[in-house]
Amino acid sequence: MDQGESKTDRGVTERDFTVPCKDRSIPGVLWTPEGSTAPTPLVLIGHGGSGHKREDHLVALARRFVRHNTIAAATIDGPVHGDREPEELRSAPIEKRRKHLVGDRVTDSMVEDWKATLDALQKLPEIGIGRVGYWGLSMGTMFGLPFVASEPRIDVAVLGLMGPLGKDERLSNDAPQVTCPVLFLQQWDDELIPHDRSSELFGKIGSAEKCLHANPGLHSAVPREEFLDTQNFLARHLSA
Amino acid sequence: MDQGESKTDRGVTERDFTVPCKDRSIPGVLWTPEGSTAPTPLVLIGHGGSGHKREDHLVALARRFVRHNTIAAATIDGPVHGDREPEELRSAPIEKRRKHLVGDRVTDSMVEDWKATLDALQKLPEIGIGRVGYWGLSMGTMFGLPFVASEPRIDVAVLGLMGPLGKDERLSNDAPQVTCPVLFLQQWDDELIPHDRSSELFGKIGSAEKCLHANPGLHSAVPREEFLDTQNFLARHLSA
Repeated sequence: MDQGESKTDRGVTERDFTVPCKDRSIPGVLWTPEGSTAPTPLVLIGHGGSGHKREDHLVALARRFVRHNTIAAATIDGPVHGDREPEELRSAPIEKRRKHLVGDRVTDSMVEDWKATLDALQKLPEIGIGRVGYWGLSMGTMFGLPFVASEPRIDVAVLGLMGPLGKDERLSNDAPQVTCPVLFLQQWDDELIPHDRSSELFGKIGSAEKCLHANPGLHSAVPREEFLDTQNFLARHLSA
Repeated sequence: MDQGESKTDRGVTERDFTVPCKDRSIPGVLWTPEGSTAPTPLVLIGHGGSGHKREDHLVALARRFVRHNTIAAATIDGPVHGDREPEELRSAPIEKRRKHLVGDRVTDSMVEDWKATLDALQKLPEIGIGRVGYWGLSMGTMFGLPFVASEPRIDVAVLGLMGPLGKDERLSNDAPQVTCPVLFLQQWDDELIPHDRSSELFGKIGSAEKCLHANPGLHSAVPREEFLDTQNFLARHLSA
């Protein structure tokens, strides 16, 4: 793991990092409580489609975890997103990018990326082996649900804005293997994922403790109140 | 309005009351903060089927509103429930009771009962004209949704565990007229109201601010955490 220079602002220490995984180099950002000592609870944050590891609302979420809950947070760029976006896709139509995001192969490699990232982070003296949560909506669930399903170190997860994708059964097949507490967000008027599809995915999640929160509005119009709820939900389970 | 003797226990003043409404006498209970002065926010609580105005979990909820949120709470018995249960129904099979609970006539009379109760309570010096919420699940939504839909004094509501009932379109027709903020509870494995039916009713509610919370479990297995959430939701809107 390579770490960039760390900067501290109002109690939050932030640094870039890269983690090697097979032939790939995974770029990420880590936020930790200033002067933290292991074990520190950690939330892994997966961004949505067309997003990246430093999106404003994810940085704000990560900083809130650190400042309000004394929980560390980390993001990584997804496949063909952020610093992993190949030159030729930068001005390409969205359909061309989508092609790189579907299928078991890309999902499996993103699951590997998250596992390698978690391995590396847990070796840091300021993180260690503590409780771990996952937070990811939309594409952050498309890749995050299979990760949570296959990773026993994840103690709690926030998922949502996603349903089974066409004929691809990966999410439906993996959902029953998710057994940690889950808060699942749904947008009632979601123009990308009809609410009955995301309900279907919620229904398949294996966790005994799971809760769906549905609000009116389009895919990206999750109310601020719900974002705060997801934070409180993770903090409650990670600080227990 | 006739009031019974008031008793005060740990900051909560409680009394029975009866309110006349047409040819009926509506029995209820009122909980107020000790020594409260108007205007005091008020929550009207509607019990579920086979329940009554003094069910343990409703008394506990009412007392929490008073003690934690300085909000008054009141319950009344529903038609053929509690003190309004006719002698001949007391040992009758449940089907016989159900016959008295369906149709516009009984719904309209329960709506009248709630309006008369609210009229009477707002005349009390310790209540006055403050913000008003409604809390009712299952039968508490079956009668409560039409009440909330037709009563502009209701500022916020907790509803749920209910869907359109067979061919009866009353709930579906009234739901678009509900426009206040609503938190709607759903039990994913509800054996009485299938979750797609309660989703359907949630979808028809007219409020711009509405949120559905779904949890695994049978009709009556609402998690304690959700009960606390409903309280916080009402308190946040009533104290604003």
